[in-house]
Amino acid sequence: MHETPPQPARTPAPAARRVGIVGAGQLARMMLGPAIELGLATPVLATAPEESAAQVAAQVHPGRHDDEQAVRALAEEVEVLTFDHEHVPTEILERLEAESLVAVRPGPAALVHAQDKLVMRERLTALGHPCPRWWRIGSEEALAEALAEAGGRLVVKTPRGGYDAHGVRIVDGAAQARDWLAAHGELLAEELVPFTRELSAQVARRPGGQSVAYPVVQSVQKDGVCYEVVAPAPGLDDAAQQRIQQLALAIAEDLDVTGMLAVELFETPGGEVLVNELAMRPHNTGHWSMDGAVTGQFEQHLRAVADLPLGSTAPRAAASVMVNLLGGAAEDLAPGTRAALGEDPELRIHLYGKTVRPGRKIGHVTLVGEDPEDLLRRAHRAERLIVDGPDADRPTAPTVDGEPR
Amino acid sequence: MHETPPQPARTPAPAARRVGIVGAGQLARMMLGPAIELGLATPVLATAPEESAAQVAAQVHPGRHDDEQAVRALAEEVEVLTFDHEHVPTEILERLEAESLVAVRPGPAALVHAQDKLVMRERLTALGHPCPRWWRIGSEEALAEALAEAGGRLVVKTPRGGYDAHGVRIVDGAAQARDWLAAHGELLAEELVPFTRELSAQVARRPGGQSVAYPVVQSVQKDGVCYEVVAPAPGLDDAAQQRIQQLALAIAEDLDVTGMLAVELFETPGGEVLVNELAMRPHNTGHWSMDGAVTGQFEQHLRAVADLPLGSTAPRAAASVMVNLLGGAAEDLAPGTRAALGEDPELRIHLYGKTVRPGRKIGHVTLVGEDPEDLLRRAHRAERLIVDGPDADRPTAPTVDGEPR
Repeated sequence: MHETPPQPARTPAPAARRVGIVGAGQLARMMLGPAIELGLATPVLATAPEESAAQVAAQVHPGRHDDEQAVRALAEEVEVLTFDHEHVPTEILERLEAESLVAVRPGPAALVHAQDKLVMRERLTALGHPCPRWWRIGSEEALAEALAEAGGRLVVKTPRGGYDAHGVRIVDGAAQARDWLAAHGELLAEELVPFTRELSAQVARRPGGQSVAYPVVQSVQKDGVCYEVVAPAPGLDDAAQQRIQQLALAIAEDLDVTGMLAVELFETPGGEVLVNELAMRPHNTGHWSMDGAVTGQFEQHLRAVADLPLGSTAPRAAASVMVNLLGGAAEDLAPGTRAALGEDPELRIHLYGKTVRPGRKIGHVTLVGEDPEDLLRRAHRAERLIVDGPDADRPTAPTVDGEPR
Repeated sequence: MHETPPQPARTPAPAARRVGIVGAGQLARMMLGPAIELGLATPVLATAPEESAAQVAAQVHPGRHDDEQAVRALAEEVEVLTFDHEHVPTEILERLEAESLVAVRPGPAALVHAQDKLVMRERLTALGHPCPRWWRIGSEEALAEALAEAGGRLVVKTPRGGYDAHGVRIVDGAAQARDWLAAHGELLAEELVPFTRELSAQVARRPGGQSVAYPVVQSVQKDGVCYEVVAPAPGLDDAAQQRIQQLALAIAEDLDVTGMLAVELFETPGGEVLVNELAMRPHNTGHWSMDGAVTGQFEQHLRAVADLPLGSTAPRAAASVMVNLLGGAAEDLAPGTRAALGEDPELRIHLYGKTVRPGRKIGHVTLVGEDPEDLLRRAHRAERLIVDGPDADRPTAPTVDGEPR
């Protein structure tokens, strides 16, 4: 565990006891268990009672994240406001912070770097942190020029509102971004990085500056959605682990992040890393830590935003893996869940209470042990059982006297 | 982990999705986090909104555990009924079970052995399980005779309604039980066992019979309340571990327990064990497993009563310790909690949301690692900080120029 020293002794501000969560997706849901154990009240702002966290939270405030009155109503009942996602309009948070109505963590000045990809690229570049080559695109002409410089292909991203694969497009002609230019005015274009793999570095930081880093992990995407994580990243030596942890800690410090920060990275063939995306909340690439680290990321996020001392990020074993459950053939997850638990007593299952739709994140599984390959094989076996159902891989032909034919 | 083989393949009854919990104390509270992750709905029956679990549960039914209408109202909304404590009148549960309104787990025929100490002693003795010498006492004369047989001193217990130190009294004269005889009609008297230490064996069992055993632990009481647990019990060799696990598994089987069963034991100077008490629910001596085992006892209890396959009981490390937080000098636990988390990043804190009263169970801490002595020292340090406050052990004398005087 890499850790900055705690702050010098002074009379501390009292830690928060009520932390409001804007948004009621699975990230808010997974904060609830740790909040109960820490004795923190965590009302959630939910747009509908069937949302993932709204189903299971003791206190649910109805309302949208972009409705200032709804966000204010939640803020008035808590000492700290934090987030399930980064889509709350910056202006709303700036007003709440300016009025000192509530402590916003992460604050809007930090959060904007997770909300707006152009702001993020500009700032990280100014700070000297490693990024892919990028262009601010305000017109088709500008995109055509950038394409020429980049060799004919670019990744184009909407600055705001994207998540997972949404808001990302690969183009080889300027006209292919015409609709987005019309809708967004400006776009971010980035070189296609010839990466060897994706890594993710997660850190937590308190308002006073105490920060801790989790082991850097390897992540695999599927159709633009996080799918599989191995912690720590296989084959990454101690020096590289520490160098990347330092990068993430430096970004958290430079941007004055409070709470969890995930830095998604491309590893290049030369062994360097480039920053891909930032998220200022618990992140899919950190779900392994719920079962695989002394302090899981959801508890850590709450401790950080409530200004409680941070917990150990040490892994509980040599390796942990996480595999996402993405909606498949089974509409009812119960039979497959039962089968998966029956096959593997060490399996850890986390379900989000969401209606199944193809490819939708509906849960994840983790396994903690020694051999990442073995853990991955078992986790994917469980995944198939849960998302496709226990009968999906059985022979469908009838049998005679027990013999398949 | 000791484990019975899973049941032979057959079309299984569907696992439950809604498990009602009668009672809203800290045991119900600590089921809520695991229930969220498993996707189980767990409404609780609470007598007051400020009860430990009622504060944090998404669904709270108001009512008392001995009010049949209240228990029925909860039962009508779930597939399985389980318990935070063993004080639900047996008749109510027998009627619900006879009507097949709900699956009662553990069922009343099992639960009565955790409710009524005379029934428990009679049954365990008939089954040949090791008990202290005991007497059924219906009069002062009978108690006087038993005292003469036992050498002049006995432990007298009320058959029902006791918990922790309540309902237990040491007597050396028959008149000392007069009030309880008048109130209860019959009492249980037991020899004072000259035990070397107390042990506890926990197992989980599903309706079909699948069962698993946790490592046997050592427990220390303080004023009749569980105070400190070390898992596994130091110095208990593998043969003794297995023998005691087998005893607990046999009791679970013999009594047809579903859910968690805790068997509290006396270890005698000769290395044998005698059964002290039974509890059919998650138990204080199993709290270490929340952080120290692959599957914590609260998740395991839910899996067992919902008829989901049981999870691994393997410890995550060589040693785990648990120390209860019993109400002390600090009315507000927040400053001490903050100090304790600041001193020990590996500390795991579980708070119950209860008002502080002297000696009341208000939470517990755990530590997981290698050396039980070191873990206990750190856990007790955290305990003192939290229950007495961070200033309790500072010198109170004024200082001049930083020098104490």
